[in-house]
Amino acid sequence: MLCLTCTTNPEWIPIATANPDLILLDHAHCEKKAAFFALTMINRYPDRTRLVKELIALAAEEIEHFATVISELEKRNLTLTRDRGCDYAKALHEHVSPNEPRRMLDFLIVGAFIEARSCERFSLLATHALTEDMRALYRSLFESEAGHYRLYTDIAREYFPHEEVKKRLLEFSVIEADIVRGLPNKPTMHG
Amino acid sequence: MLCLTCTTNPEWIPIATANPDLILLDHAHCEKKAAFFALTMINRYPDRTRLVKELIALAAEEIEHFATVISELEKRNLTLTRDRGCDYAKALHEHVSPNEPRRMLDFLIVGAFIEARSCERFSLLATHALTEDMRALYRSLFESEAGHYRLYTDIAREYFPHEEVKKRLLEFSVIEADIVRGLPNKPTMHG
Repeated sequence: MLCLTCTTNPEWIPIATANPDLILLDHAHCEKKAAFFALTMINRYPDRTRLVKELIALAAEEIEHFATVISELEKRNLTLTRDRGCDYAKALHEHVSPNEPRRMLDFLIVGAFIEARSCERFSLLATHALTEDMRALYRSLFESEAGHYRLYTDIAREYFPHEEVKKRLLEFSVIEADIVRGLPNKPTMHG
Repeated sequence: MLCLTCTTNPEWIPIATANPDLILLDHAHCEKKAAFFALTMINRYPDRTRLVKELIALAAEEIEHFATVISELEKRNLTLTRDRGCDYAKALHEHVSPNEPRRMLDFLIVGAFIEARSCERFSLLATHALTEDMRALYRSLFESEAGHYRLYTDIAREYFPHEEVKKRLLEFSVIEADIVRGLPNKPTMHG
């Protein structure tokens, strides 16, 4: 799927589906952080007009999804808990080059992978979640998450040679697969 | 107007209206930072459900305004420049208590004042800007900015005794007026 070269460990699925509340609580923060990441990219590269415009639209969509997940939490009488951070995203960021312009390309590719992996996990929840409510929620979010992956790679191709983007996507696909294989199978979106 | 106890120095008006491009470039970042601030408040106080819900809606609106200002920049063939920070907002934040729960109240009041002062400046631009385009833009944004001021004070009154909110609003109105009197009359939204 997309740029991913390894699938989620099947052992994550029963852990995630047995803990829908924990998944939703973590998922809410994922949407919020996706909006933060998009706005931070605009801070870093304000003069790249296409990036700015597309990431404003992306941030708006992530915030809309954040609201959707918060409504779902409310239906379940759950209150948002503190954001514990995300080891998966942190591990990906460690591979971002410190030097421009490679740094910009790497950030865009990290954004793409986080969206792609979320998309894969949404598709698993859309199939395996234990209630139709949860399956419907993840079906409804799945499509746009795939769109977000393409948005980041399209922006990358706007500013970098297609060959360079392809090469770096391949390099990151190995890095990302290693990170995913090391995940502890916790009931979080990237656990 | 609102909680403000001093009006903008009239000398700011000709400087701002003579430099609509600089005002718009700075204004774009104000909308972005308003969204950041709302999301940061959610990070700080995730268990306050009303705060979370209202500030998600606020962040969505700020991002919509950010997109509006970016479109206006595009019409003028302008590219977003680097965010130089905002001395006004920084000065207000210096007065936020380090101790909870006062810290939460102070952040909400700082949010309210930034929105109120923006609202006052929008109303000045809606009247004095040199083109009908600019006047129309600031007329259209004026109303929602006043709504944002009320949103922050309403959230404050949800979590703190009304008398305490009133007292702290009064204290901050003196602090904010002092800060505004010291502003250098630059062509920025809070300059």
